[in-house]
Amino acid sequence: MIGKKNNPKAVVLLSGGLDSATTAAIAMEQGFGVHGLTIDYGQRHAIETDAARRLGKALNLVAHIFQSVDLRAFGASALTDSIPVPKSTRGDAIQAGIPVTYVPARNTIFLSLALGYAEAIGATDIFIGVNAVDYSGYPDCRPAFIEAFERLANLATRDGVEGDGESLRIHAPLIHRTKAQIIREGVRLGVDFSLTHSCYDPTPEGLACGLCDSCWLRKRGFAEASVVDPIPYSPETSG
Amino acid sequence: MIGKKNNPKAVVLLSGGLDSATTAAIAMEQGFGVHGLTIDYGQRHAIETDAARRLGKALNLVAHIFQSVDLRAFGASALTDSIPVPKSTRGDAIQAGIPVTYVPARNTIFLSLALGYAEAIGATDIFIGVNAVDYSGYPDCRPAFIEAFERLANLATRDGVEGDGESLRIHAPLIHRTKAQIIREGVRLGVDFSLTHSCYDPTPEGLACGLCDSCWLRKRGFAEASVVDPIPYSPETSG
Repeated sequence: MIGKKNNPKAVVLLSGGLDSATTAAIAMEQGFGVHGLTIDYGQRHAIETDAARRLGKALNLVAHIFQSVDLRAFGASALTDSIPVPKSTRGDAIQAGIPVTYVPARNTIFLSLALGYAEAIGATDIFIGVNAVDYSGYPDCRPAFIEAFERLANLATRDGVEGDGESLRIHAPLIHRTKAQIIREGVRLGVDFSLTHSCYDPTPEGLACGLCDSCWLRKRGFAEASVVDPIPYSPETSG
Repeated sequence: MIGKKNNPKAVVLLSGGLDSATTAAIAMEQGFGVHGLTIDYGQRHAIETDAARRLGKALNLVAHIFQSVDLRAFGASALTDSIPVPKSTRGDAIQAGIPVTYVPARNTIFLSLALGYAEAIGATDIFIGVNAVDYSGYPDCRPAFIEAFERLANLATRDGVEGDGESLRIHAPLIHRTKAQIIREGVRLGVDFSLTHSCYDPTPEGLACGLCDSCWLRKRGFAEASVVDPIPYSPETSG
C-alpha cells in the first residue's frame, strides 16, 4: 500500500491466529499504518509467534515488535501451566463457563503493552481481535471490558493530562462476529490463512491437533463459511 | 508475623524504592499475606531490582515473583531510552508537566501483571505505591487512574463473570501523602530505608547521584520528616 507510512498509526495485537490477522487487515483497509505487536507470554508452543512473524511479513506492516513476558510464573491456565488442554473427537469439549485455557488477565496485559507502544510512537488507535461470540467464556473478551480499557487508557497516558482525554480508541472489530463471518471477512481482505495458527496443543512437528476447543472453533468456522481451511491437521486426529 | 500464610493474600508491586517498601509494610500491618511482584522493565540499572530482592527478604514476604518485560523496545522515556535524565545541583530540575522520566503506560502494565498474579493465586487485593502529591506530573499516578483500573480489573477477571464483579480492590495507600509523610509512616512500620533505592541515574558503583528528580524528592522528604537518610550519595555530587 503506497504511502502507508504517512497514514495515521495504529498498534495491532498480532497473535498468529486468524482473528488477529483479519483484524490487522481491517486496520489497514481503514487507512492505518499498522504497527504490529506480538507477545510471547510463555504459552506452550513457539509456533504461534512464528506464525505471527510470517503474517507480519505477508501483511507488509510498517513495523512489528515482539515482546516477551513469562506468564508461566503465574500459571493457573492450561496454556501456561501443567493443566491439560481439553480435547474431544466430537467437538463437544467446549464447555459453558470460563475454559481452563483462560489465562488470567492476559488481554489486560496485552492491551497495556499495546498502550505503552502506542503512546511511545504517538498512535491513538489500538486494535485487538477479541471475539465475544464464540469465546463468550473469557471475561476479557467482552465489550464491557474493552470499553473499560478504553476509559482507563485515556486516563493513563499523556493525553489524559495534556489533551482532552478522549483521543485513545480501542478497536475490537470482530467482537460481535462469528468465526465464519471473520473468515469471510479475512478472505475478502486477502488474508493468507495458510500462515495462521490456532491450535492450543500442536504436534511436535507443528501440526494442529484438530481436537482442542480452538481447532474445533476454527474447523466449524471454515465449514460454516464454506471456505476450505488451508492448514494441515495431524493425520492421527483428523477423520 | 506468625500465621501470615493463612492471612488473605495481597499482591504488592515492589520496585525497590521507599514508596513501595512502605506500601508493602502497610499491607502487612493490615493483615495481608504479601506476595511481592517486582518488574524489571529494562530501566537503565539493575540496582532497583537488587534493592527489591533485599527488601523482599527483609520484609519476609510470603512469596516474591520477578517478571521481565523490556520496555526499551518502545522507548520514549529517559528511563528506557537514550534521553538524558534531567539533573540539577539546586533541586530545581523538577519541572511542571509530565517529566521525561515518565514511561508510557508503565503503571498500567505493572497493575495488569499484578492482576494476572492476583487472579492466579486467588488474591483480591493489589497494592501499588503511587503518589499523586510529589509526582503529580505522571498521568498514571492519579486517583482517577487507580479507580479506572479497579473498575477494569473487576470486568477483566473470572469474578466479573462468575461473581459480583466487585471483589478486586486496588489499594494506593500513599496516593495523597507527601514524601515526608511516607517516610514517617515507613519509620513507624520499621521499614529499613537503607535497603531502598530511588536514584534514576546511579554511579557505576551503585551510589545515588543526588541530582536527579527522584534523589531531590527523596532528600527533601527525609529533611522535611527530620529523619536521616541512611543511604550514601555520590561524593562528587553531595555538597
